[in-house]
Amino acid sequence: MSTQAPHPTLLIPGPIEFDDAVLQSMGHYAESHVAPGFVKTFGETLAMTRKLFQSTNPAAQPLVISGSGTLGWDVVASNLVEKGENALVLHSGYFADSFATCLETYGANATQLKAPIGDRPSFEAIEQALKEKPYKVVTVTHVDTSTGVLSDIKKVTEVVRRVSPQTLVVVDGVCSVGCEEIAFDEWDLDVVLTASQKAIGCPPGLSILMLSGRAVETFKARKTPPSSYYSSLANWIPIMQNYENFKPSYFATPPTQLVHALHTTLSQITARPVSERFAAHRQASDRVKAAVADIGLRQLASKTENQAHAMTAIWLPEGLTPPDVLPGLLKRGVIFAGGLHKEVATKYIRFGHMGVSITDPARGDVEKAIAALKESLADAKKAKGL
Amino acid sequence: MSTQAPHPTLLIPGPIEFDDAVLQSMGHYAESHVAPGFVKTFGETLAMTRKLFQSTNPAAQPLVISGSGTLGWDVVASNLVEKGENALVLHSGYFADSFATCLETYGANATQLKAPIGDRPSFEAIEQALKEKPYKVVTVTHVDTSTGVLSDIKKVTEVVRRVSPQTLVVVDGVCSVGCEEIAFDEWDLDVVLTASQKAIGCPPGLSILMLSGRAVETFKARKTPPSSYYSSLANWIPIMQNYENFKPSYFATPPTQLVHALHTTLSQITARPVSERFAAHRQASDRVKAAVADIGLRQLASKTENQAHAMTAIWLPEGLTPPDVLPGLLKRGVIFAGGLHKEVATKYIRFGHMGVSITDPARGDVEKAIAALKESLADAKKAKGL
Repeated sequence: MSTQAPHPTLLIPGPIEFDDAVLQSMGHYAESHVAPGFVKTFGETLAMTRKLFQSTNPAAQPLVISGSGTLGWDVVASNLVEKGENALVLHSGYFADSFATCLETYGANATQLKAPIGDRPSFEAIEQALKEKPYKVVTVTHVDTSTGVLSDIKKVTEVVRRVSPQTLVVVDGVCSVGCEEIAFDEWDLDVVLTASQKAIGCPPGLSILMLSGRAVETFKARKTPPSSYYSSLANWIPIMQNYENFKPSYFATPPTQLVHALHTTLSQITARPVSERFAAHRQASDRVKAAVADIGLRQLASKTENQAHAMTAIWLPEGLTPPDVLPGLLKRGVIFAGGLHKEVATKYIRFGHMGVSITDPARGDVEKAIAALKESLADAKKAKGL
Repeated sequence: MSTQAPHPTLLIPGPIEFDDAVLQSMGHYAESHVAPGFVKTFGETLAMTRKLFQSTNPAAQPLVISGSGTLGWDVVASNLVEKGENALVLHSGYFADSFATCLETYGANATQLKAPIGDRPSFEAIEQALKEKPYKVVTVTHVDTSTGVLSDIKKVTEVVRRVSPQTLVVVDGVCSVGCEEIAFDEWDLDVVLTASQKAIGCPPGLSILMLSGRAVETFKARKTPPSSYYSSLANWIPIMQNYENFKPSYFATPPTQLVHALHTTLSQITARPVSERFAAHRQASDRVKAAVADIGLRQLASKTENQAHAMTAIWLPEGLTPPDVLPGLLKRGVIFAGGLHKEVATKYIRFGHMGVSITDPARGDVEKAIAALKESLADAKKAKGL
């Protein structure tokens, strides 16, 4: 039996349902952020973050910072790009627009390479763009939460290394870390930034990043100081290195309870090979996608290879909008999200399937959601005389 | 009986001991950040934040953002000061140095007005400095956590309004909000920034700010865009206004569990007149200060009017350092903090007395701490043959 109060099942693309033990860690008693007990917890958490990214290269640097996932953009924009340098932003939905704005705020020249809604830029277009001018960074949204489009970050990185080897590959993994395969060292990625509240299964409030040795060296070679203070790697890297070596250190008070919750969920995740976790998400995704097709609905992500494995963005039938369908889902104990991509927000809904809803099939969350979707759609069509 | 696991009593100047109900709120089940339930919780939390600051002016703007208290400095430095403008930083300890660095990161010219350790700049010196050049902001640390020095922010504001009325008064209230009196409207303050984990009694992870109408107008009159993205008021103010009007809104995912915990503690705090809370902290502080004098120890804060009411920084007897005394305190179930001010860190300890340790006298935290301090000092002196 869960220790949580009864509540509708949260199946949006984050925050997600939490494991009981993770929520219990959120209520950890007060601890000093520099006392041995917490220092050990934080140090172990950073070590497990490496495992989550399948990284063993000691030159790579994990960071866990108090803030929303959005903060990760500031870390990249204010530390890895200098004023006037170029950033290539691969666009597969809403989040690329915002990342580009963040990069420009700190002085980068951001060029967006756009694809039609439901698609991602082609490898040919990326190669072409890289040949046009020197880029300091290429950013790619691994899974765009607004469209459910998956990018192939392994192949994107291969293209970058071939055409422009020194360009840093920055992955926005907010909706992918913990559910989509990421082999940080092997794929030669430079930055993956994410948040705690999606497939990692920890409540929101932590910005989590992994930097390659190349990214750290690029930072150290800056000609100008970092253009932010709270997001400055000059402030954070020594803190993270100290904690990982079990030495207390202070720049800003860490969110001790959230770090405990992250420790608990990462202990669960890394207790088994992460490949099993990725496979479980792929299998559940296949079931969801098949059910969506069965119901006669289409996805925003237009091709099989472009479809995320931890969420599905679903076009509603002509004549229906999210407010026609979401209340029926809620009545059946399930919460989906409405659309987020500005141009088409009223035409689709989003179903998040990740974390405990997948790794603990005894919960029956996915089956309940599929049944509820079918019934709610039928009700909504009837109500509209469709 | 507390529902928390047995643990030593945390009496550092933050994080502090938490109320059971607050910690239970940290384990709230998963909710969508844009669903009616959470929107109501966040909206009420913002309204209670106004009460905490004794503010009724609708032009004032509360903000609750995912991040450490430090993030508040970035909000000020990247929104309220433009490149090349002057900031006067009143120095009463370690935190002014860091705030000045943050201001300079975003392009301000920061001038520090320093006082000897344990003191604060005089009103005459502040007036003199304000006459020398035009300042966009004056920053003052209400209680410097490194020294326990209290600033008189009411009088500082009077001086600023008389000499340089358009200069914004920015208060770093990280170690003062919730324990020291603050009458935001009446004293005509412009910004108070704080964090969740000190006298507010919520776990760490929230940056909390209150802006005056004057501060908001100053922001709107910027000639250049804000120089940060995550800290940009252009991004946050609409979000806060929407939530306070019970409308869902999205810029970055709020830390839903922490917001619940803040809601719980603010409900407790605002259930009674805040003046009673401030009086309780003053009375407890008087007892602590008297006991410290009885033991024959001196405080870093050199004058009665300079002494904070929620913490006491205590010089150790000649020949003793924090590692000689802190383990004896821990053995007796009490955790104090070591020194933090770089120049004298090895010569003093810090005793935090705020939040439930004060408002729930039945806990006996202060008495236990005073007895433990007396005994640990005696042991340490004996061990050193002093």
